[in-house]
Amino acid sequence: MRGYTMSKEQYLARLKRIEGQVRGLQRMIDEDTYCIDVLQQIAAVNGALRNVAIGLLDEHVGHCVADAAAAGDQERAREMVNEATQAIARLVKS
Amino acid sequence: MRGYTMSKEQYLARLKRIEGQVRGLQRMIDEDTYCIDVLQQIAAVNGALRNVAIGLLDEHVGHCVADAAAAGDQERAREMVNEATQAIARLVKS
Amino acid sequence: MRGYTMSKEQYLARLKRIEGQVRGLQRMIDEDTYCIDVLQQIAAVNGALRNVAIGLLDEHVGHCVADAAAAGDQERAREMVNEATQAIARLVKS
Amino acid sequence: MRGYTMSKEQYLARLKRIEGQVRGLQRMIDEDTYCIDVLQQIAAVNGALRNVAIGLLDEHVGHCVADAAAAGDQERAREMVNEATQAIARLVKS
Repeated sequence: MRGYTMSKEQYLARLKRIEGQVRGLQRMIDEDTYCIDVLQQIAAVNGALRNVAIGLLDEHVGHCVADAAAAGDQERAREMVNEATQAIARLVKS
Repeated sequence: MRGYTMSKEQYLARLKRIEGQVRGLQRMIDEDTYCIDVLQQIAAVNGALRNVAIGLLDEHVGHCVADAAAAGDQERAREMVNEATQAIARLVKS
Repeated sequence: MRGYTMSKEQYLARLKRIEGQVRGLQRMIDEDTYCIDVLQQIAAVNGALRNVAIGLLDEHVGHCVADAAAAGDQERAREMVNEATQAIARLVKS
Repeated sequence: MRGYTMSKEQYLARLKRIEGQVRGLQRMIDEDTYCIDVLQQIAAVNGALRNVAIGLLDEHVGHCVADAAAAGDQERAREMVNEATQAIARLVKS
């Protein structure tokens, strides 16, 4: 099953880039960059992090939930759906 | 399977209350209520709508995805996971 | 001073349309519409509400804050900035 | 004028901590941490970034907008309000 899910290498590459963006934010603050430009960069980092999160959620639902359901383990599937829903709620409000 | 999912009556009751809140917003604007108070009410409506959305997502993942997976229909399960992920992405960015 | 700010009539027209969208959501639930389609509509309503909120914030900053500052009332201006920031924080997390 | 605004050192300290959290995320992915735990950490980083953004917005409105308005430069004040509103809109949707 494939979809939004990324490979481990892709997740790591994205997070490496995000780490670089956060260091860039430090440089911007250090050099007294106009705050609106810093805000634009923060929105970019937030968006990049959300895309990683969406990939992980896709993986969780597509593998953890679906595998438990396919194995006929309804209780475990329900537990994993609950975890997914809590994670979505946290993400939406973060 | 139960969780965040609500009954049809619960969804309708919530949406009825949200409709009343939106009418309340119109009254606030009409009476020139201080904009910060209107903003507080908008945040409340947004939060209430998100809770309905989270309930629906829980239902989709816990029923549609899990049922397709339990029935061994991997292709259909994957399709439904994709739909769920797209809906989450839209919700997070709305 | 103009910008994102809308006229009272524009706010009311938008909220009237949002009220109709919320009634549409009730119909969708009542008719057992596929939950992914309901979620798409909820994201649309959330987005519409956010646009109203952004208009009000623009108004608050462009009128309340700027007028207090222009009148030399620094304390009042600061109070209004605090209110704006709290409203933004609530909105971002709702 | 004080409020949510932080000092340069406080912004840098926060961003340094966020950088550490992003490196922590890489470690979690590398060690195949359960995706729900990774998602919790991403929500924490997003929240921390948003708080930095809210501090910067507070600063922009409380200094840039208010100073322009206090100096009687309405055109410049309006321009800065527009920038603030655009930044808020981007942040809300990121």
